[in-house]
Amino acid sequence: MSTNRKPKISEIAELANVSPSTVSKVINGRAGISEQTRSQVEEALAKLGYSKPLVSTKVSQTIEIITEYIENNGTIELIRHAAIWGKRHQLGITVNQKDPDESLGDCLRQIINRNPSGVIIQQFSKLSEDDQALLDSRDIPWVIIDPVDVPDDNVNSVSVDNWTGGYQATQYLVQQGHTRIGVISGLKQTQSAIARFSGYLAALRQAGIEYDSSITRESDYRSESGYQAACSLLDMPNPPTAIFACNDLTAVNVYKAANERGLELPRQLSVVGFDDVYPAAYLSPPLTTVEQPFGAIANAAVQMIMNIRAHKTVERHITLPTHLIVRDSVTAPLEHHDAGSANA
Amino acid sequence: MSTNRKPKISEIAELANVSPSTVSKVINGRAGISEQTRSQVEEALAKLGYSKPLVSTKVSQTIEIITEYIENNGTIELIRHAAIWGKRHQLGITVNQKDPDESLGDCLRQIINRNPSGVIIQQFSKLSEDDQALLDSRDIPWVIIDPVDVPDDNVNSVSVDNWTGGYQATQYLVQQGHTRIGVISGLKQTQSAIARFSGYLAALRQAGIEYDSSITRESDYRSESGYQAACSLLDMPNPPTAIFACNDLTAVNVYKAANERGLELPRQLSVVGFDDVYPAAYLSPPLTTVEQPFGAIANAAVQMIMNIRAHKTVERHITLPTHLIVRDSVTAPLEHHDAGSANA
Repeated sequence: MSTNRKPKISEIAELANVSPSTVSKVINGRAGISEQTRSQVEEALAKLGYSKPLVSTKVSQTIEIITEYIENNGTIELIRHAAIWGKRHQLGITVNQKDPDESLGDCLRQIINRNPSGVIIQQFSKLSEDDQALLDSRDIPWVIIDPVDVPDDNVNSVSVDNWTGGYQATQYLVQQGHTRIGVISGLKQTQSAIARFSGYLAALRQAGIEYDSSITRESDYRSESGYQAACSLLDMPNPPTAIFACNDLTAVNVYKAANERGLELPRQLSVVGFDDVYPAAYLSPPLTTVEQPFGAIANAAVQMIMNIRAHKTVERHITLPTHLIVRDSVTAPLEHHDAGSANA
Repeated sequence: MSTNRKPKISEIAELANVSPSTVSKVINGRAGISEQTRSQVEEALAKLGYSKPLVSTKVSQTIEIITEYIENNGTIELIRHAAIWGKRHQLGITVNQKDPDESLGDCLRQIINRNPSGVIIQQFSKLSEDDQALLDSRDIPWVIIDPVDVPDDNVNSVSVDNWTGGYQATQYLVQQGHTRIGVISGLKQTQSAIARFSGYLAALRQAGIEYDSSITRESDYRSESGYQAACSLLDMPNPPTAIFACNDLTAVNVYKAANERGLELPRQLSVVGFDDVYPAAYLSPPLTTVEQPFGAIANAAVQMIMNIRAHKTVERHITLPTHLIVRDSVTAPLEHHDAGSANA
């Protein structure tokens, strides 16, 4: 049931089975309400078609971005490009880093109280139905970047062709003669990590190379776990001759681990990354990596929000291409060098 | 003249010598007004004590940050920590990258239309009196990070002890035996660059080392100019044995230039940076650098804005300490190594 008539507090209270003052507290974004009571009231609000912004009445000329961690990986590129694109529409970009011990719902509630023009969400965990209902109840357009799951039809999303990126990175290593290619994937609970890893597997299969699970590691795309994974691969009795690091931050840590072990890159270890963000081009050797088009991602997300606001028909799921950027971190594996010298 | 009575449009129009509709356009932030006319109206508004926020009446629960370039240097750390501190006060942090061809005034005008709780400004150029008047006319508290000039008494600022940072970095190189220490400073039009460079000079003087201007270079703290400066130093017939790079991004480019020339770090070239931001700790060798306390900087700026809003007395100028973080990018110069071996 959705109507233009604004429901009375008493109606909402009756439907939610709470007191009118509790309803008022929820509407005004006050604290001191249990999560369950809040849900009941929000459900009642949604049922009664209460879709007006709650606390503030004026829509703020901002788009809010929520990330797990504002960091020197793709996040900063996403923020920078969103700021550039938002500015063209006179929209500010407000950044949020979810506290580790905070629920996404609590983080969203604080954001909703500022009544933004839209919300861009980059998360490692899935948006719950409650979180979705919260955003929808205020008619705030929201877009997921790199969705954790294959997105439902009612979700707006922008992602990149992660599978092809993983395929190309691995295929390039195979073409240079590598057959023992280690991989440090992202967390396998996210769609992007699964797709990159699947691209890796497909390229191996295509080349007739049997998959060896002993040279697969998983990380959370952050420094510590990437470094541990790199050390663990390099300390094997028979380490891989190349590593596909599924984000650039992990590749930086592969370099670090390799340097600590006195390995000469790329002669003794080839590396391919994923992202093409700073400092990829400044490393020694400059990193061969899969470029994510962060400018186009940010533009697509901002444009999607503008279009929903303007009641234009939108393409709900946009997937943007990735490209392999060849620099100097890959060469033929050492056996091949030796074979080359023997022939010379 | 400042009064609580709201001036009439006609009064403002008369004082500004423009039509009432022009006044209305300026107040509502419309386009199509010449810069001069806008200034006239804004002056009249200020004279008549029109200090109410113009377009929106509700103060937005956000703090706006303006930077020259959202980049992987101190900027990202400042943004991240501002987001963390802002969140504790239920304030969002809205990020702005000024267009290269845009005046700071135009950028500020867009921001002011969103009526933020405060503005944090990190700029390489000085805030003009007009820009200051624009912010003050709306009663929006503003704080300068790393002021370009020694700040006036009416300016709120947060900076770090750049001089001591530069002094410590250079002193450490001297202590390791270096006497031929090159420097890549920031643009000498900014107070922070002047202070770091002055710290470098003071440490040399203190050690009785004569300053040699032939091994001084200037950069704008960004990659391209840092790289050119590094190449120019390393290609000298008698290059320095150590380089003090006045930000980490420049240090990354010193590594790059050194690696391209086959120099082994730190044996053939010692490097000290300034910032302690990613990827300083992950470089090979990990970078010895001067840490800026970005968490404390962001906290001080947010707190200053909150205090001004709450009409509390504030310390207008806060200077936070810097610390030398010793890692592995500095060793004794090669002559000393050789001397060591000869003695052995």
